[in-house]
Amino acid sequence: MFPRKDLFALPEGIVYLNGNSLGPLPKSVTPRVEAVLTQEWGKRLILGWSECRWMEQPIRVGNQVARIIGAPSGSVVMGDTLSIKIYQALAAALEMRPKRKVVLSDTGNFPSDLYIARGLLSSLDKGHELRTVAPGDIPERINAGVAAVMLTETDYRTGRRHDMESVSRAARDAGAVMIWDLAHSAGAFPVDVAGCGCEFAVGCTYKFLNGGPGAPAFIYIRPDLTERAVPALSGWLGHETPFAFEADYRPASSIERMRVGTPPVIQMTALEEAMRIWENLDMDELHSASIALSELFIAEVEARCDGLSLAGPRDPALRGSQVSFTSRHGEAVIQALANRGVIGDFRAPDTMRFGIAPLYLDETDILAAVDALEDIMSSHIRDGRLSNMP
Amino acid sequence: MFPRKDLFALPEGIVYLNGNSLGPLPKSVTPRVEAVLTQEWGKRLILGWSECRWMEQPIRVGNQVARIIGAPSGSVVMGDTLSIKIYQALAAALEMRPKRKVVLSDTGNFPSDLYIARGLLSSLDKGHELRTVAPGDIPERINAGVAAVMLTETDYRTGRRHDMESVSRAARDAGAVMIWDLAHSAGAFPVDVAGCGCEFAVGCTYKFLNGGPGAPAFIYIRPDLTERAVPALSGWLGHETPFAFEADYRPASSIERMRVGTPPVIQMTALEEAMRIWENLDMDELHSASIALSELFIAEVEARCDGLSLAGPRDPALRGSQVSFTSRHGEAVIQALANRGVIGDFRAPDTMRFGIAPLYLDETDILAAVDALEDIMSSHIRDGRLSNMP
Repeated sequence: MFPRKDLFALPEGIVYLNGNSLGPLPKSVTPRVEAVLTQEWGKRLILGWSECRWMEQPIRVGNQVARIIGAPSGSVVMGDTLSIKIYQALAAALEMRPKRKVVLSDTGNFPSDLYIARGLLSSLDKGHELRTVAPGDIPERINAGVAAVMLTETDYRTGRRHDMESVSRAARDAGAVMIWDLAHSAGAFPVDVAGCGCEFAVGCTYKFLNGGPGAPAFIYIRPDLTERAVPALSGWLGHETPFAFEADYRPASSIERMRVGTPPVIQMTALEEAMRIWENLDMDELHSASIALSELFIAEVEARCDGLSLAGPRDPALRGSQVSFTSRHGEAVIQALANRGVIGDFRAPDTMRFGIAPLYLDETDILAAVDALEDIMSSHIRDGRLSNMP
Repeated sequence: MFPRKDLFALPEGIVYLNGNSLGPLPKSVTPRVEAVLTQEWGKRLILGWSECRWMEQPIRVGNQVARIIGAPSGSVVMGDTLSIKIYQALAAALEMRPKRKVVLSDTGNFPSDLYIARGLLSSLDKGHELRTVAPGDIPERINAGVAAVMLTETDYRTGRRHDMESVSRAARDAGAVMIWDLAHSAGAFPVDVAGCGCEFAVGCTYKFLNGGPGAPAFIYIRPDLTERAVPALSGWLGHETPFAFEADYRPASSIERMRVGTPPVIQMTALEEAMRIWENLDMDELHSASIALSELFIAEVEARCDGLSLAGPRDPALRGSQVSFTSRHGEAVIQALANRGVIGDFRAPDTMRFGIAPLYLDETDILAAVDALEDIMSSHIRDGRLSNMP
């Protein structure tokens, strides 16, 4: 079943291990975007909103994403950016637990999530505290003072995963609202937001879902709670009847209450087309392929490359679809790899990240990447120093 | 100098009087977007952020918009939607006037602006009041209790304009922060945000600027106040050094502090290309052409069409680049016009709106529109009732 390289416009001679930052271009996206420009915007003009169903695109694409993350149809809507969707989820969560004053997160969370949370708490000025603890300490730190537990499931640096089910259960048992950021999870392995019972989930779509640079984010609300979720950023397209231009805001009864302003039709068309790839994919098979490639990569690197340490879990069940190694020369090594067509990335101070996307990677790619890495580590590092880096 | 129809991919046989809702497709947008897809995203992948300067696009396009609205370079940044930029402007304004509790707006403001304001004030829960008064009463209602005056310069239904300079002066004299929404102003006529001294301005780019469906919004901060503007929605791309992934948020010292998340590169590319049309345009000449076409339209309609009343100001100096008429049959008339290729739009209960964009409209178009309108009004309205509407 994998890989499906024929679906992607990957450049010749590139081994792309950075789909955890920005997925590659699906071939069918270009003609589809071109059609929306020339046939829809160009020819239908304003009528595109109704006749070409642009207005419904955020919920239509939301349903595509729902399938990937184990959410029921109608519980996910697209829009804006992940930072904005985190803001909306956290603001709604705090309204659900007005007497509790702690937002619990971990030190491995993506900084923007923490920035957004701190900014929101500061502007609310109601005595909330953002408490960040070590990832492993999360379950024991969830208590009756916690309004919301806000976590990124997969650590962006190391690939370490939280156990969504047990953490969500701990939150529920303590009466806290659970918010999952699935940025590095959606499209990487099976996710079951409905099964874990979390109240909110958010994520981006330009990584494993290949939606393109700046593709819109998604937000999920547990369906029984939708009408209790007060929408921060109460823009007109979250209104029950936006085109009635009523004086007062009435949130939509559906997940669409989390819409804000005019959706980016051209950008979302790229995502909508990219999401068609997932229609007939089996996420368990994809995950198995990811694990096989990741295990091969780790085994080969550890057998052939000195000076690299695996970062994050060795157990593939605890790891997202990425492999990270640390090296004091990490930044230079990533650059040297790029010069040889192997694209990973670097996160300070010493982490080299490699995204494993079985949609367009096979064993040959993994071995070619390790060949390049072995050569760099053996030929250009002498006495712990870099020399003659290509 | 006008029109420049050759720049636009307008369908044959259409008179497009709805550029105040969604501008038409500039011809050069399609190849440019295609190049970003295939040559940038497709070939450069993650490196596009640096090598193709995607990361700087929001400030680069902001500078294109700045020129249109009389703002200095470096004072405007693009992103998100107008509703979100209103939220940021108002939140920052309230932080600047913590002791004042009134947000003053008018009943002609676009509903989403008011929804956003009410939502923000409600979540802050600090005793603020959103006070909406008749547009003409605004100057006298600005007093020492007003924290922020938040107005849309051009009324979306009637085209009535506020006087930016005198209203901004009244706000300044009363110590209130002035926020202008330029949704129907940017690209319609000369705007001088710097000259009027307002603290904030926001707007969208899919109307007269022809940026495409869902094109990103802009926000301006008066440069001397940038570092005092506390960014609501404190996402990572508003950080001084986003890629340092610091634990704490430090807002950028520049206007880029109003950035939030990953910018929509594909969508913004359409806008960036559309904005090239404005590089050598004289806004005064454009405005003169708009007035000439508008006056022709009004004179012909009033001479030839019974049952229509001009909505909004008769004095072109008080009117945006649109003409509105009211009719009890407005909705049916707009539909009948569309059936004949004349595209306007309808706003309940009785307003027919016609956007006047001299970039792609000439006298022939205006006369053709009036011909159609005259025929509809004379042939199909009998005894005040509609009949045989085509």
